[in-house]
Parts: sequence; C-alpha cells; structure tokens
Amino acid sequence: MSLWTIDATQPTPELASQLTVSNGLIGIKDLAEIPGLQTGPLTDTVGYVNGFYDYQPIKYGEAQFGFPQRNQMMVPLPAPTRFELWLDGQPVDLNQGTILAQGFHLSMKTGQFEHCMTWEERRTGRQLEIKLQRLTSLKMAALLTQRIQIQPLNFDHGQLRLISGLHVRGMVQPKAFDPRLAGFDTSDILAHQQITSFATDFRGTTFTASHSRQQLSTVTHYDQPGHWLADGNWTSQFDLDRQPVALTKTIWHSLGRATLTALIKRQLMQPFATIAAAQQTALREFWQTSDIQITGDAESQRGIRFSQFGLLQALGIHGGRQGIAAKGLTGSGYSGHYFWDTEIYEAPFFYWNHPKLARRLLMVRYQQLPHAKAYAKSLGLSGALFPWRTINGEESSAYFPASTAAIHIDADIAYLVIRYYQITHDHEFMQNYGVELLLATSRFYLGYGNFDPQKGFVLNTVTGPDEYTALVDNNAYTNYLVQFELRYLTTHYQRADLQRYGVTAAEWTQFKAAAARMYFEKHGDLIAQDDSFLTKRRINLNRIPRDHFPLLMHYHPLVLYRLQVLKQADLLLAMVLLPEQFSDAEVQTSYDYYEPITTHDSSLSPAIYAIAAARLGQASGATKFFKRTVNTDLENLQGNTADGLHLAAMGGSWITFAWGLMGLTVDDHYATLHPVLPHGWTRCTFKLRYRQQRYAITVTPEKLSVSGAPTTVTIDQKQRLITLNPE
Amino acid sequence: MSLWTIDATQPTPELASQLTVSNGLIGIKDLAEIPGLQTGPLTDTVGYVNGFYDYQPIKYGEAQFGFPQRNQMMVPLPAPTRFELWLDGQPVDLNQGTILAQGFHLSMKTGQFEHCMTWEERRTGRQLEIKLQRLTSLKMAALLTQRIQIQPLNFDHGQLRLISGLHVRGMVQPKAFDPRLAGFDTSDILAHQQITSFATDFRGTTFTASHSRQQLSTVTHYDQPGHWLADGNWTSQFDLDRQPVALTKTIWHSLGRATLTALIKRQLMQPFATIAAAQQTALREFWQTSDIQITGDAESQRGIRFSQFGLLQALGIHGGRQGIAAKGLTGSGYSGHYFWDTEIYEAPFFYWNHPKLARRLLMVRYQQLPHAKAYAKSLGLSGALFPWRTINGEESSAYFPASTAAIHIDADIAYLVIRYYQITHDHEFMQNYGVELLLATSRFYLGYGNFDPQKGFVLNTVTGPDEYTALVDNNAYTNYLVQFELRYLTTHYQRADLQRYGVTAAEWTQFKAAAARMYFEKHGDLIAQDDSFLTKRRINLNRIPRDHFPLLMHYHPLVLYRLQVLKQADLLLAMVLLPEQFSDAEVQTSYDYYEPITTHDSSLSPAIYAIAAARLGQASGATKFFKRTVNTDLENLQGNTADGLHLAAMGGSWITFAWGLMGLTVDDHYATLHPVLPHGWTRCTFKLRYRQQRYAITVTPEKLSVSGAPTTVTIDQKQRLITLNPE
Repeated sequence: MSLWTIDATQPTPELASQLTVSNGLIGIKDLAEIPGLQTGPLTDTVGYVNGFYDYQPIKYGEAQFGFPQRNQMMVPLPAPTRFELWLDGQPVDLNQGTILAQGFHLSMKTGQFEHCMTWEERRTGRQLEIKLQRLTSLKMAALLTQRIQIQPLNFDHGQLRLISGLHVRGMVQPKAFDPRLAGFDTSDILAHQQITSFATDFRGTTFTASHSRQQLSTVTHYDQPGHWLADGNWTSQFDLDRQPVALTKTIWHSLGRATLTALIKRQLMQPFATIAAAQQTALREFWQTSDIQITGDAESQRGIRFSQFGLLQALGIHGGRQGIAAKGLTGSGYSGHYFWDTEIYEAPFFYWNHPKLARRLLMVRYQQLPHAKAYAKSLGLSGALFPWRTINGEESSAYFPASTAAIHIDADIAYLVIRYYQITHDHEFMQNYGVELLLATSRFYLGYGNFDPQKGFVLNTVTGPDEYTALVDNNAYTNYLVQFELRYLTTHYQRADLQRYGVTAAEWTQFKAAAARMYFEKHGDLIAQDDSFLTKRRINLNRIPRDHFPLLMHYHPLVLYRLQVLKQADLLLAMVLLPEQFSDAEVQTSYDYYEPITTHDSSLSPAIYAIAAARLGQASGATKFFKRTVNTDLENLQGNTADGLHLAAMGGSWITFAWGLMGLTVDDHYATLHPVLPHGWTRCTFKLRYRQQRYAITVTPEKLSVSGAPTTVTIDQKQRLITLNPE
Repeated sequence: MSLWTIDATQPTPELASQLTVSNGLIGIKDLAEIPGLQTGPLTDTVGYVNGFYDYQPIKYGEAQFGFPQRNQMMVPLPAPTRFELWLDGQPVDLNQGTILAQGFHLSMKTGQFEHCMTWEERRTGRQLEIKLQRLTSLKMAALLTQRIQIQPLNFDHGQLRLISGLHVRGMVQPKAFDPRLAGFDTSDILAHQQITSFATDFRGTTFTASHSRQQLSTVTHYDQPGHWLADGNWTSQFDLDRQPVALTKTIWHSLGRATLTALIKRQLMQPFATIAAAQQTALREFWQTSDIQITGDAESQRGIRFSQFGLLQALGIHGGRQGIAAKGLTGSGYSGHYFWDTEIYEAPFFYWNHPKLARRLLMVRYQQLPHAKAYAKSLGLSGALFPWRTINGEESSAYFPASTAAIHIDADIAYLVIRYYQITHDHEFMQNYGVELLLATSRFYLGYGNFDPQKGFVLNTVTGPDEYTALVDNNAYTNYLVQFELRYLTTHYQRADLQRYGVTAAEWTQFKAAAARMYFEKHGDLIAQDDSFLTKRRINLNRIPRDHFPLLMHYHPLVLYRLQVLKQADLLLAMVLLPEQFSDAEVQTSYDYYEPITTHDSSLSPAIYAIAAARLGQASGATKFFKRTVNTDLENLQGNTADGLHLAAMGGSWITFAWGLMGLTVDDHYATLHPVLPHGWTRCTFKLRYRQQRYAITVTPEKLSVSGAPTTVTIDQKQRLITLNPE
C-alpha cells in the first residue's frame, strides 16, 4: 500500500471522487478525458468553481410563511480537461481499438493527478501511450493546468490530430444533482457560455448562470501552435516520428467577466514543470506543518493523510471568500452547500495547524452576517441566525424541521470563534469580528428561548444534531453549546466592552441569567437528549433489516421522530466539544445509553463516538470508529462516495486522531495532550501550532516527547500528559 | 330581513359562494350565466361533482420518505348554466346595452336559485327581462335543471337566438385552486371533454380527468326545438311577439361513461315545474324535522337556518359515497377535501336530526378503511390511520406536521361512531362496521404511543387541533379523545366479541392499560395543551397588529410553534366533546387561560368557545361567539368566503345552538338539555331525534316543554333540565 498516493487501474464513480483535484476554488473530476475511450460508468464528469452558483425556485407541496423561496446550487461546468485524438484521420476510440493498460494515480506529495493509457489500433496494431497530468494550483488558485503527452510505441510515422475543448465528440453536458432533491428538475442549472477572443493564443469564455446571473470567466491557453474552431474547440496537428508529443493547456478562472491582464498572461504561459514545481513546494510546506506519521498501521497512515489532503484540497491555501462545501469540490452532492460541518468537523484541523485558514473560514461567516441578521428578522427575532445550508449566505434548505430549526448552527460558529481565539490569541480578529459574532448569535438565542419559572431558560422547538428527532424542547447539545457561548461572552467581556453594539444592562443580565439557568433534563447521571426523548420507545437496532439503513430512506419522519433512535451523535458531541464540563461517569453513562441506539447513518457520527471511547479508555472502540472514519471514502462506507467525498468525515478523521487518540484539549490557559496509542501503533508523530509556536509531538508506548520551539512544556510520563503553556 | 331567503342586487365573489346551489353531488356556482352581461368581478364560476377528482404530483423542496406522492383535487368543471343571447342578430351584452335592474335570490324553502335582469338595448331602447331559475335536485341527486324565461318588455317583434353550452362567448375555463397551494401549477387539472351523440334531443359529454383518468358523464336535454352545433353548443331561435320565451335545460350526472337509459330519459324530460315541486317537498320534509325557530333575534334566526341549509346542500339527502368537503360544493378552497370537520363539526347536526345521513358519513370512512390501513402500514404500524385530507381515502396533504401528525383524526371518527350509536342504538351498524372502526383506530394508537415508566401511556410527536403548535408530546385533546375511545371499546365489549378481528389477550390488556394510564400534563386545575406548552412564552394578542392575522400568513411556523398562541380551540374542544369528564372549575380555568391566547384564525374556533362559555353560564360570551359563527359566511368574517363557504362553521353553528345554548349532552343512558336563552330571545323551538323518537322542544324564559312522541321525558323547570330516556 502506497502511503502517499491513491492508485487504481479501473475507473469507477467512487474513484472519480477520490481522484478529484481541487484547490479550494477549482475542482476537476474527470477520469475519462478522451470520451471515446471511456471504459466504465462514471457520474458527473465536471468542473466546479467554489462560489459559482445558480438559483432555483423551490416548490413546496404546502408552503408556509417564511419558507425560503429559492435554492442555491453549485453550477456544474463541463470538464475543461476533455479532448479527442485522431490518428491518420481515424478516431482514437474504443471502436477503432482497445485499451491495453491503464492507470490512475494521485500523489499527495506532488498534488498531481495522472492518467496513463496504452491504446492499440485494432486494424494496424499500432500502439499509442497517452499520459495526462493535471493539477489545480495551490499557489495560484485561479490556475488549472493539464499536460498531455502522446508517444507512439511501435510505429514510426503518423499524423496525430488533437481537438480540445468543451464540445468534443462524446462530451456529455453535466447536470446539477443533489440526492436530497431527487426528482427535482435541475435541468436549467447550467451556465450559458459565451466566447471572447483575446489574441491568437488566449481564448476567454464567460459562463452566466441562468437565474442568479452570476458570471464566471475562464481564459485558456495552449502552449503549442494550433487554431480555434468555430464551435470553440481548439485543434492542432502533430507529426509522430517516434517522438512524443507534449502539449499543455492552462486555464485561468475568475468570477465576473473575462479579462486578460499581463499577470494572467504570464501565469498562463508558465511551463507545466514550473507550475508543478510550485505545487510540490506548496505541499512540502503543508506536510511539514501537518503531517501525521504512524508506524505500525499503514491503513490508518494512508487514511489520515488522505483526510488531511482532502481538507487542504477543499479549502486551498490562498484567498477566496468561499467556505468548505459538504463534498468539497468533489461532487454535486448537497448542491455545494456549506453546513455546520465546517465549524465543528473541519475547522479543528485548520485551527490546530493552519490558523490563518481557520480565520478565513470565520471570515466567510462574518461576511454573511447581514444575511444571518435578515434571517433572524424573518423569524421576528433580533441578532443573527446563520443558514443551515448555503453558498451565498441565504438559507437554501426547504425542510425547516431539519434545517432552520437546527439553531445550534449559531452556537457552532460561536464555538469556533472561542476555540480559535483560545488557540491563537488573535486579538485583532476577536476585537473586530469575533465578539460581534458572539453577540449577534447570543442575541438570537435570548429571543428564541424564554425563561420558564419552573425549568429555567428553555429553548423549545429546536432540532439538534441528531436529525432522527426534530422540533423538540431543550435539545441538550444545543443548550450546552449555547450555555458555553453565553458564559464565555459574559465572563470574558464586560458590558462596557460591547458598548458600540448597544448592549443594554437588561440584555446583559439576561445573557448571564440564561447561561446560569439553562435547562437540562437529567435523570441521575443520564442526561436526556431532549425533554421527551427518554419517554419514547427505545429501538433495538439489531431487529431492523440491514437493508433498511439509512433509516431516513425507509421510514417516515413520524416513525423516527417518536422513537429513541439516533442518526448521529448528539449529546455525545457536546461531551466531545466541551470535555471539561462532563464527568467520566456522565460520559460513560451517555455512551452506554446512546451508542446502542445510534445508527451512524450520518458520516458525522463515528468520529464522535471514537473520541468519547478514547476518553473512556476504550481503545478498541476508539480504533474501530477511527478506522471507519478514515475509510469513509477510501472504502465507500456510506455507499455514496460517487456523489463526492465526505469532508466532515475527513475533518472527523483528524479530530478523532487529535482529540480522541491523542487526547488533545484546550481551554483559556492550556492545551493538554493525553495520548492513547491504538493497538499495533509503535510510534506516532504529529504537529500542532499553539499561540504562534510550532510543536512536533512524538508518542511511543514508552515515551512522550515534544520538539519545536516550546516555551513551557510539561510532560508527565506517568499520566502520559503533555501540557503546553507558552505564556 | 327575509328569514328564508338570501337576496342581493350586486354580484360579488362572496355572493357567488352564498348562492351556490348543491345537493351533495352537484354544485353550481354561477352569477353570470350570460358572460357578456357580467357586471362584477367573480371568482371560479364553476360546476363541481363531489368525488370527481384529478391527481397532481406533489413536488417537495426536500422530500422525506413516505411523503404522499400525489394530491387529489376536485376537478372544476365549466359551468353548464351559461348561454348567450342574440336579438335580431346583435348580441345581448354590455357593449350593446345596459342592465337596468338585477336581482339574485336563493330560497331555503324552495331550494331554488333565481337571477332576474332587465336589459335595455342602447341603440333602440328595447328592453328584455331575463329570468333564470335553477336547482340541483335533492330528490334525484344526478339532476341539475335551469329554466330560462325571456320576456320583451316594451316592444312587439324581434328574433331571439339563444346559444347554450360549454363554449359560449366570453366563457372562461375554470381553474383548480387551493389557497394552501398558492403558486402551484394546477393548470392541467381540467377534465378533457368528449361528446357522445345519443339522439336529437339528448347529448352526452364525458369528462376525463388528466391524471386520475376518472370519468364523469353528463347527458343534457333541452325542452325546446333546437339543434347542436359543431363545437358542442346548442342553439335555438324564437320569435318574440310580446310572448315570453321559456326554455328548460336539464342535465344528468354520473361517474363513468355516458349512457342513456329509459330512467335517465324520463328524468330529463320532466317539466321544470315537476322537478321544482319535488324539491319543495323535499325541503318541507327537511325543515319539518330540523327547523329551529327563534323569536326575538332575526339575525340568529336567519344565520342558523342558512347553516342548516348549507349542511343539507353539502351532503344531500340521497345516495352517494361522498363526504362533506371543507367548502362543500361551493368553492375550490381546500381542493374539495374531506377533513375531521365532518365528524366533529358537521356530523352532530345529522346524528341529532337525520341519523341516516350521519350513518352515510360513517360509511364513507368505513369504505376508505383499506386506504387507512395501508397508511398506518406506511408508518410501520398496524391498525388504521385515516388521512388528514382526502377525497378518495388517500392522504392528500403535503405538510405532515399539520396533517399526518394530527393523529386525532382517528379518535374523531371513533367519537362519531360512539355518539352515533348512543343516539341511534343502530346495532346493525355497530356490529358490522362501528366496532371494526373502533378497533382499527385503537390499534393504531397502541402502536403509535408507548408506556413510559414514569408518565404512563404517552403519545409523542403529534399535532392537536391547534395548528399553531405541532409535533408535540401528549396533546391533551388527542389523549382525552383516545382515552374515551379505548375506554368505550374495552367497557362495552369483551375480547370475545371481537374474536373475528384476532384480538389477542395481550392486546386487550394493553388497550385497557393505555386508557387507564393515559398521560396528561396537569398543573392543579390547569391542564396543559401538551407537555411543553406551558413552558413557552405567552403571547399578548393585543400587541400584534390587526393586519398580521391570520398569524400563519405572517409568521414562520418556528415562531408560532414556540409561543403560547392558539389558532383554534384545542383542550377546550375536548371539554366540549366530553363535558362529563371535566369539572366546571377545570373548564373555567382552561377558558380563562386559553381564550386570551386564541386567535380564532380558524373558523373552527369560535363555536367551541361559545359552547364552553354557555356551560359556564357566560351568556354574553356564548352569544358573541354564536353570532360570529352563524355569520362566518353571511358577513364574510374570515375574508375568504369567495373561495367557498365554511362548512365547519355551519356545523359549528348548529352545535353552538344545540350543545351550547340548549345544553344538549348525551351519554350511554340519557340525553339531557339544559338551555340558556340568549338575551333578547323570547322563544325558541327546535327538533331532535333520539332513539327513533322525534321531539320538538320549546324554550321560553319561563317554561320548557316537549312535544312529539316521547316515552319518558323528565322536565325539571327549576334547573331548566330536560332528560330524554326512551328506554
């Protein structure tokens, strides 16, 4: 098993997702660059640009007031990687010949995708080797480049014609798709193309989305002589004299209308090797600060690396106001929407390794704050409610019991603000943006909830992380996270600090009272997921046929909502996010109570149980769930990797490793590690960045050690504890 | 004010609903029979046939498993009452002349609609009097007849041409419409027409619904010489020699393909006067057994009569497997669906006056039991769940929190079974159908709910009558009605009686246990609407702008669901339906607590508060809500009478009168009356039928008396109590 690459010889829909190259802005998913040579069934061969979306009007069976009127959908673009070949006037395809050998390869060290084929012409026996390399640049996110090399293997002379572009033979126009919206007509979510000529060597294309009228433009350059055809394709001829033909196509992407500046020209004219070298440098830097090395468990090694690489590809290194879609840029699943997955599952890797990127994620939310304020207002409340799923900041969900009602989204964002600050001490961010986010979301909660004389502060009619229960009262996860936020705000700030936001004394008192009197339904050590959860009929998962999972595909919400059954970790997630607030006995009781009724139908679930198991010293449970998480897409465990990779599981892999196996926690004062090595691991090293310092930690069964530039590191071998305190 | 008629001189959309004639099968809503003479804005001019529906696929923003896939919609038919007139080759319309006078008239004694117009030709000053009479026959439900009389008023000679049919000048095709589905494309809910010729004098037309492929056929007959045109219209010429022209068009309706039997022929050839006389007889019989006479309050007198007439028109007297739609046959509102309104609001008038018709309503449900069993199965449960809204027995609602979750529908039907039996002692019905309905619905509840060790039997995740709260736990209304049903079943029957339905001993024990341990959230005398209702923020209705009502049109469900605010009576309805189960103190406490937070946004609400107020001796409150109920459509109090009459308010008028003002209650042994005369009423008489006996009751401020054929009547003047006990 290669630990730095993904290799395969058969194209499959899952492989297409796994081998997508992306850089936070552009995603390219294509295993059949020459359509005539496509050997397997592939789904959406496509290009994506993060943030380029169209609207679609939402139709409701019975609409209620305030339901969102339009959906955003990431626009699927025709893959710009496609071309056709002609050898002496005959097409190079599966009618004329066969593929003798084929290989696909993605390197996490070079950030390059490769596809090699050997094709034999049936009539003549002539063989061609075709090699494709491509990458989406991490250094310059607008840039996509693809090199094509064609080598005659067993013949001397021939004339090769290459046609490249969006209208080649056998090209299928991509379709917008979201499994949640099956049956929806998305046929008009397709950007209209318009071509702009610049110069002989550069060609601009502007894509305009049908309803949003948003524009995306590309400028394309080929490094070989050729000419543009009337349909927008480009063509060139080559003499094959036992010499390989090499051709590089490079494309610049930007939102708005196509222009051609000197900078863009220069970027486009770089040789492939130059761009590839820069890519390798970027990745070297990335791995230097992020790589986890595991000795004794190659499967986990490759899995955790693939997860980190996936997170990098989804967000990129530079620029952009885009967030991380549920599937990154690897598929049309979930319409390219950003969810709470970002803050809770994906951000931790970034705030512990690449704090600037974590800040970028926070700024995406901050920039969408006006939309969130308008959304709260639409519910008659002040403050801000962030959308459950969105690209541009507007709510894009059509089923409010599992979206708008999931008001924990606000507290999830606040959680990221707080953890980000605890780890980075980025005062400037907190002062200018963070506090405003905390305040706007706290205000929303104060209005949504109310004080009940008996119970205290209640948040009724909400949906927690577990979507197999909806519109309940006092979801414990929500209440714990909101309490954490309100406490943080009111203990770290004085009302005077927030004067510019017009906080009144009454409001400030209410924030404190809501935190202090937050209601939780408790039965001894057992905390109820919500007020009525424990009164419901408890499910026995073993009695449900295996093919009835995921349950939401086989049972009406009214069946699921009135049973004790979980789609995913709920209360346990609160325990994982706020470990200091729960005793081991409480975690153990909850684990024992909730795990047997958790289906893990969501890919967001196993990681959380892994972390809880690790805390409880249950190494085998932790390892089992860890492996399930890192293999989510490598082994297509959810069965839908074809729709795109599960970015939350990739983030979940990292938190399972760091929070779970390494026992990483943080508070206002310290970061602490408390590692438990899984069975078989003989050594493990990883990196963290804490308050501007970098640390490299090595764990063996016998020893703990820290290198880097620590100022204060306390290592307690007996308890296997490391405490980092750089102040 | 005429006490037996509705009269008007201006056509309005509201008037069109008020003056609709219908007979349970056919409804005709048309105030502009000659389109060219239409003077006001009118909505759906249309014909309806109860039970003739089309399907429409339901589109969901985000569908969940088990959501209904298609909607039923009553098909709006082009009104068969329309015609055009030509006088000496010039059209009789508003271009050529003006209407000098016009009158509309509906008699509740004759069951006839009349429309008279005097039209003057502008060019010549010639005047025509046009008089239309029509009725939908109560004796022979398939029959619609319309007589047209045209009289020259101030001229001697002229040639009149009449063209009649579905394609006359200015005819607009009707559209399916449901305010709940605004924005939905219903343009294809329109039956395709096909003409069949029978003989010169009879013309068949078959309407086929686009998706359901259901067929409706009509056979049309004119009693004057004329001929059929190619477009399906019929035409005739008349010489006007100061003689009035009289013409009768009669139409036979039946589901299925058009046929012409001797019976149909005979029916169609009856003179208008014969059909009209039969109609008058039918109504005489109806009023003899139903009329309420109020001395001293003309407004209430007319209102209660209009309500009873409306109920009669919606259900008819004879035949049919059709139920009562929310709007009867007076408009397209709610798509012609049957709701729980039937059992709770409309059936009481029938079971107390026309028990055979109440039985018919029960049989509609019984015949749809197989659908209800399949629906329960789709939720993984045994027994039967009746649909929230339906025509053919399939669920036709697209928003489950306010439909499928309203599982009280089953108990509402069971309530009707029980009351029907208590009043009629119809053993045959109970033995063959009633018990099966009780058992199937009880089984559903046993599966839906569960026993909680602390609370007892709980029904979680339900929606009660008040739709401003949804998906709650232990809605008190639901639990009381279910308890009533389970208790009735298990105390009036032995398990052995139900052997043929395979009732096990365990099941029987559980029925009893569920009834005995049914959970209610109580705080002293105050019963909570559901488990969490009292912990929510209480609304102050006075602080909401008047134009924000109905609230559901101005607030997101998540706003309403987490406030203490009611769309309509909920717990109070249980108290009204099961008066013996609640003390006066409990009713008073509930009234005082819930009435101030009830918006009465539903027309189902005021009647219930009226009845509760009457029980509490609050005559002024009772009278206020009673008047509001009887005037719902006469004064367009909901603002949407144009979409059709509110049949539930018409039923509500009767129960307010009988249960509220007259204090009528019933149990296994007795019926009891305990009247409170509203201020101003000097005398009031009304009729009841109880255990095959008819009673006429007279109430004055001084005296109570009963005439008819009572076997045992106890009158206690001091307490103003009458007890009927014919056994």
